[in-house]
Amino acid sequence: MDERLKKQMDFILEVDKIKNIGRQTYLSDGKRKENDAEHSWHVALMAFLLKEYANEEVDVLKVMTMVLVHDIVEIDAGDTYAYDAEGNKTKEAREKAAADRIFGLLPEDQGSYLKGLWEEFEAYETMEAKFAHVMDNFQPLLLNDASGGKSWVEHQVKKTQTYKRNERIPEGSGKLWEQMEQIILKNVEKGNLRDA
Amino acid sequence: MDERLKKQMDFILEVDKIKNIGRQTYLSDGKRKENDAEHSWHVALMAFLLKEYANEEVDVLKVMTMVLVHDIVEIDAGDTYAYDAEGNKTKEAREKAAADRIFGLLPEDQGSYLKGLWEEFEAYETMEAKFAHVMDNFQPLLLNDASGGKSWVEHQVKKTQTYKRNERIPEGSGKLWEQMEQIILKNVEKGNLRDA
Repeated sequence: MDERLKKQMDFILEVDKIKNIGRQTYLSDGKRKENDAEHSWHVALMAFLLKEYANEEVDVLKVMTMVLVHDIVEIDAGDTYAYDAEGNKTKEAREKAAADRIFGLLPEDQGSYLKGLWEEFEAYETMEAKFAHVMDNFQPLLLNDASGGKSWVEHQVKKTQTYKRNERIPEGSGKLWEQMEQIILKNVEKGNLRDA
Repeated sequence: MDERLKKQMDFILEVDKIKNIGRQTYLSDGKRKENDAEHSWHVALMAFLLKEYANEEVDVLKVMTMVLVHDIVEIDAGDTYAYDAEGNKTKEAREKAAADRIFGLLPEDQGSYLKGLWEEFEAYETMEAKFAHVMDNFQPLLLNDASGGKSWVEHQVKKTQTYKRNERIPEGSGKLWEQMEQIILKNVEKGNLRDA
């Protein structure tokens, strides 16, 4: 077999593993938690649907590709819950090693491109990265709201933690941040988020 | 709230349900079957990685968007296994009604566009639709091969059925069909597909 196609197929099978990387967010029906592949599918579709709300025009193909691969490093590094302070200290180093190994399976041009997109997402500087972060945070907020805040209650999450986590969201979309804030405040009122 | 954004959010929450639509294909580790959201994530990423093998150049953003939504109709219509002859008789009518309802949740411009992409996929005429079908069929073939043909063995699938199912794949990618055929023949040799 063609060496290039073999590398692409090896990568495609390797990333199948993100279907087994669990997240803390429950599906909207509250019955089970979702995994990284399901989350990434949802976020990519949202990027397409909500691109009109980005503060500046975005290259939507780039955003969609970025979000399709943004969690692939978790195959080696695991999912670090947004409100896990200890885990977040070592997250960067663990994820960098994972990116080198996993994107390194691809032919050099594609591996560099996708690893570059992941680095761009993490660097949080371009409009595409900022908008991808809006999608990445809005998606679990919508699911948490739909499930009655199930994951927030389980982890006793405070309002101030959600504000801290989302502090840069207005850089990507002022309009969607307004909507997100309304959802947060509604859930504080309902007691799903701690008013602290 | 803004009526347009409300419709978009309603759609985003509605399609969360495809995470509960099971398919017949096992994950590469053979431990469980995958669902439509996981499959769609995988297929969209494959479209990006393998676009160089399309027989003619494709609009990759269009292919990716098409495959992200191609299974959404199964929320109402259910997944019809490729080798279920009875189910496939009523599939078209069930899926059409589902498309009307689900894409109808969106603002008119976006609903028409995405429903149009789904119809284009089903009509199997454009290069984008043909290439999307290559991805949609290559992905379970790779997983079946990796899991030792687990789903094929379970359903006693015959080689001739796989050829029938994939008969139009060469229209999308001659190169990838060659690879797919090699995988099929290897699995016939191994006894994972019935030589009939």
